[in-house]
Amino acid sequence: MHPIEFTPTHYAINGQPVYLNSGEFHYFRVPKSDWRRRMALFKAAGGNCLATYIPWLIHEPEEGTFAFGDVDWRDLEGFLQTAADAGLYVVARPGPYQYSELLYGGLPGWLIQNYPQLLARTLAGEPFGMPSVSYLHPLFLEKVRAWFAAVCPILARYTVAQGGPIALTQFDNELTGIHIWFGGLDYNAEALGFGQADGRYPRFLRARYGDIARLNAAYDAAYGDFVEVMPAPRAEDTPADVRRARDTFDFYTHATAEYAQTLCRMLREFGIDTPFIHNAANPEMNPYFLETIAALDEPFVLGSDHYYNLDQHWPQNNPTPQYARRVFLSCEELRLFGFPPTVLELPGGSASDWPPITPEDALACYLTNLAYGMKGHNVYIFTGGPNPPGVGESTDMYDYGAAIGADGDVRPLYAAQKALGDVIAQYPWLVEAERAGDCRLALDFEYARAERYYRPNYQTWELMERGPLTTAFCAGASPVCVNLDSDDWVTDVATPLIVVSAESMGRAKQERLMRFLQNGGKMLIMPTLPTLDETLEPCTVLADCLGATPVWLNVGRVVRAAVGGVVNVRHGAAYVSDTLPLETDVIGVNEYSGDVLAWHTTTDGGGQAIMLGLAWVHSKHEHTAMLRALLTRLGWEPRVVCSNPNIWTSLRVAGERGLLFILNLYSSPMEAEVSYRDATGALISTGTHRLGAMTVKVVEVHL
Amino acid sequence: MHPIEFTPTHYAINGQPVYLNSGEFHYFRVPKSDWRRRMALFKAAGGNCLATYIPWLIHEPEEGTFAFGDVDWRDLEGFLQTAADAGLYVVARPGPYQYSELLYGGLPGWLIQNYPQLLARTLAGEPFGMPSVSYLHPLFLEKVRAWFAAVCPILARYTVAQGGPIALTQFDNELTGIHIWFGGLDYNAEALGFGQADGRYPRFLRARYGDIARLNAAYDAAYGDFVEVMPAPRAEDTPADVRRARDTFDFYTHATAEYAQTLCRMLREFGIDTPFIHNAANPEMNPYFLETIAALDEPFVLGSDHYYNLDQHWPQNNPTPQYARRVFLSCEELRLFGFPPTVLELPGGSASDWPPITPEDALACYLTNLAYGMKGHNVYIFTGGPNPPGVGESTDMYDYGAAIGADGDVRPLYAAQKALGDVIAQYPWLVEAERAGDCRLALDFEYARAERYYRPNYQTWELMERGPLTTAFCAGASPVCVNLDSDDWVTDVATPLIVVSAESMGRAKQERLMRFLQNGGKMLIMPTLPTLDETLEPCTVLADCLGATPVWLNVGRVVRAAVGGVVNVRHGAAYVSDTLPLETDVIGVNEYSGDVLAWHTTTDGGGQAIMLGLAWVHSKHEHTAMLRALLTRLGWEPRVVCSNPNIWTSLRVAGERGLLFILNLYSSPMEAEVSYRDATGALISTGTHRLGAMTVKVVEVHL
Repeated sequence: MHPIEFTPTHYAINGQPVYLNSGEFHYFRVPKSDWRRRMALFKAAGGNCLATYIPWLIHEPEEGTFAFGDVDWRDLEGFLQTAADAGLYVVARPGPYQYSELLYGGLPGWLIQNYPQLLARTLAGEPFGMPSVSYLHPLFLEKVRAWFAAVCPILARYTVAQGGPIALTQFDNELTGIHIWFGGLDYNAEALGFGQADGRYPRFLRARYGDIARLNAAYDAAYGDFVEVMPAPRAEDTPADVRRARDTFDFYTHATAEYAQTLCRMLREFGIDTPFIHNAANPEMNPYFLETIAALDEPFVLGSDHYYNLDQHWPQNNPTPQYARRVFLSCEELRLFGFPPTVLELPGGSASDWPPITPEDALACYLTNLAYGMKGHNVYIFTGGPNPPGVGESTDMYDYGAAIGADGDVRPLYAAQKALGDVIAQYPWLVEAERAGDCRLALDFEYARAERYYRPNYQTWELMERGPLTTAFCAGASPVCVNLDSDDWVTDVATPLIVVSAESMGRAKQERLMRFLQNGGKMLIMPTLPTLDETLEPCTVLADCLGATPVWLNVGRVVRAAVGGVVNVRHGAAYVSDTLPLETDVIGVNEYSGDVLAWHTTTDGGGQAIMLGLAWVHSKHEHTAMLRALLTRLGWEPRVVCSNPNIWTSLRVAGERGLLFILNLYSSPMEAEVSYRDATGALISTGTHRLGAMTVKVVEVHL
Repeated sequence: MHPIEFTPTHYAINGQPVYLNSGEFHYFRVPKSDWRRRMALFKAAGGNCLATYIPWLIHEPEEGTFAFGDVDWRDLEGFLQTAADAGLYVVARPGPYQYSELLYGGLPGWLIQNYPQLLARTLAGEPFGMPSVSYLHPLFLEKVRAWFAAVCPILARYTVAQGGPIALTQFDNELTGIHIWFGGLDYNAEALGFGQADGRYPRFLRARYGDIARLNAAYDAAYGDFVEVMPAPRAEDTPADVRRARDTFDFYTHATAEYAQTLCRMLREFGIDTPFIHNAANPEMNPYFLETIAALDEPFVLGSDHYYNLDQHWPQNNPTPQYARRVFLSCEELRLFGFPPTVLELPGGSASDWPPITPEDALACYLTNLAYGMKGHNVYIFTGGPNPPGVGESTDMYDYGAAIGADGDVRPLYAAQKALGDVIAQYPWLVEAERAGDCRLALDFEYARAERYYRPNYQTWELMERGPLTTAFCAGASPVCVNLDSDDWVTDVATPLIVVSAESMGRAKQERLMRFLQNGGKMLIMPTLPTLDETLEPCTVLADCLGATPVWLNVGRVVRAAVGGVVNVRHGAAYVSDTLPLETDVIGVNEYSGDVLAWHTTTDGGGQAIMLGLAWVHSKHEHTAMLRALLTRLGWEPRVVCSNPNIWTSLRVAGERGLLFILNLYSSPMEAEVSYRDATGALISTGTHRLGAMTVKVVEVHL
């Protein structure tokens, strides 16, 4: 077997682009007697790879006593050999954490019971609601090292380079989740060095601020040394509060990156020669891995887990347009991070029997992910079985409603997974395809992370999702995302750029937007212009470039907005422009007062900017009409035209080949006429499509 | 036209039971030239009544200047005459509040602008985020009186008793919403008498406590007089905190009832001789009207508004089983309050175009309401049109995506409303039918109201919904509800009673449960036994009756539960019984420790009680199996047997006639074999039903 390689856009084997079609298959649960048959079923559905946890708690039942191969459910090598015989790659996931509804998240009970000092702690020093460990605790790392020293040599004999099936190795699982879900950030002082001379926290602050005077200025404080500074929980009363909380969160993700790096180095040390992977627990956590991505100097792919329902606390029972929007953002984020978008847990059932994961819903989910750029996935789980004695968190039987039942029966969900495999097989060029975009959306990951420390910025991220992005989809626009932390889009002025800005935006980001305009770029920015940088210090680089002296008044609901020829635009906050650039077209006003809500100006270098002082949650046809009108002013030409605003589309293109995805993620039938623009710019109709409830249709087109 | 009367179970006209099929139709929006045609369309769909707001702000544009009939959109009398000509009843809704996406919720702008003293206030004295008035402010009531004095004499000429079409009159709209959504409880001191000798608040406290010493004991305080006591926002640190916050909330709903009573008296004074109605804004607010129901000595029906989506902030895009559960509880609550369950705003579109209200979803919603006991409804809205000049909150055109568009076009939603009308017409006896129950669920409205003042009790209400009630539906049980504040169920021991208890339960309720057991009743109680009364004073009436000395340990997640022969029951909190009744069967244990989690005992009088120490959110087949096993121990015999736990059913019976509703509220097709028990106790199969996504099927059966 050749190694699995990857580029920023796709996986490849022996130089051939390939889709990574993986399924979770636990040797410690699936009865050994049925391994071969279930693997054959998986291959028949299009699979080329299996993933398995290798639970620490079953292989080191007592400290220092390791067991492999003595019983079927510990027969790791037998499993690896059987997978190789079946012609399937393996993703090895040796932890230390697994979760997987195992006791202690897969850590040995003795570790938790005998070493309470390594537990994660709240700021007050209390342990969390779950046995969550502090990742960087030296004793924990020592125990992990012993576990890796035992398991890695086995795995190392089965890597692809050694003629085995292991192509990828995952370190840990859903990093940060075990803390954030059960207690918040980890404040274990021993591990993180709070108050310790040369501890991690004072070192982090020293690296960030250089000398204590700068920190004191930022914190409005009077520390004598970095070692005196304690982490601060979220508080938003003053800019100093926000800076402290932001530093605390950044330190936490920085420390998480150090943990990831430590694990990777151990794995290498013990002979693992494959690339590494890791899975963010959900799309919202993707940006928590920026430091991890920067820290790892190894071949690495970050993927994300894309569930739509795991129990009745989830917002919806089935995939929805809101889910699609989330998938779109997640795949775009992973792509912008430099990875082939990979869904490392694609729903293959649920630990809950209710609400049900139906095959129809699951297939719609799968194709939605494919539509928005998924280049590889791992179905969680493909098949299960009984938990080994004493390790299941709440159940003896781990069935998960999977495609192949715990007792081996083939369920309707299998056909849904095969249908996904069939689409991938039918359009093998899809792995090299890119989304055909006609406009761009700027992502500011600072806003996404601010969920943990600064509400106004996170609300701007939510506004971006619920407002302009949703409106763009309903308006038939095909946005692709750009990363405001990167320069790679600044000279590309082919399509208009949508920017959703908070009062604060990093100086470098503001400068990039300025350069984009000076290069002739066209930008629609809303609902305000930034006046502060990322540390909440004054910064009006972008406003200055536009010639605007922004005095923004949030005048709220008493406004009736008419923008771009569309009247009665419903909105939340409204920002009135007090001072306008010298050369400007007023294109939006308060219908009552005439106050200016939107204007269109030209910058040096021929750039164009529309400032739109409205914040809205998408809900009205007026929103789509307004966005279309504004984008059209900026030269927008839709790549796909769809007659039904409820039907979203995604056109993926590789050379002259295109696959048009038409998504009905509602519980009702829908109808839409859909056209696309070919290479000559002509609109080609694909006809009228009648889509049943929860149906994603794929239509092959030629550009 | 004969008056519309009502019994606790149905509406009637001239002694004939009838379904109230109403549609919202605003004379101030629908073009007058199209009134007749749209009314005819409404009748053709089965309608027999129209409802309309009569907006204060359009009829009193300047203070003291009233206008009626001068322009088409103020032609109230023309509308009433046209409705009468069309043979349609009218529900008149003269406010003062309307909401309806009108400026100031339908109040005149001059009222808000010229009289800031009548605005609702936060505890700190700040006005709310919206122009919310303080209901009992004397100046507000004076202005309302002037408005009623102008409008009511017109309406009074058109009541049924006077030969006109007005059969019902609604006072105000969605009481409490204008406060709770935009600022919380109203603390306008002038209106509510805080700190005023003989003010409303000190009078309320005096009536509740009698003398100040009792209040001081409850509050752990040392007031000299009731007038010194200020209202208290929610705090839950001590029982005294909870008592203060509970009194504050109870006072608020008590004051709301006084407002309702005042409005009704004014309406009567100005000649309105119809029964009154009012709509709770949503099911969760139904129990906020207990004081209003008690205060009104007039014919009165409380209904509720049952939307499933109004914009993307709603939890789901379409009706779901979670929505069905909510509808079930709401209809049961209204029935227990003594009213024919009426959905005064049944979704007839939405002010948001997205997510869409599809005809398929709407019909499933309508039939779900019918399945759970709806005996009348008002579609909001049947048809709209342009807002009068200057009164629309955010839009000139009020279309709402209604069945008949603002410009008069007939939309697919019309067919869904006609389909509902057809079912009602086809089974006219349905209005007298009752739900065929096989078990009962005890409702403690104290828990529902506690959302505003005491988290543990509200969490018990949520637990009831998400846990046992949902499990009951998935298990194929047919619960009907009883009111723990009423005696009417205490001697009926035919079917088992499910009780979900918090640590606190009112003494009278505990005594009723005791009497029920002593009458031979059978009870399943979970997850704990109450040890406190409603004021958090010690009270173990129920536990004493069971012979249990409850020492409950919440031992949480480390338990694995085996109950009623079902192992691995997933749960949240677990309560271990330390001391058991003398004569008891242990029927549930911690699988690891053997600690007792459930027991079954017999009481004096032959009652039986199962105490089940588990709190769970329904998610697993084990939950349904456990509940079936426990109910079966208490003599449960299902009235309906359904092979698919995802398909919920409701059998409504009138004499020998029955209508079986089979609900698929998922986005995927479902299949189920459904049987029902006839009068002889035999199970009769209705066959296997293949239900498309979002389909509610009705099957006529004979008992």
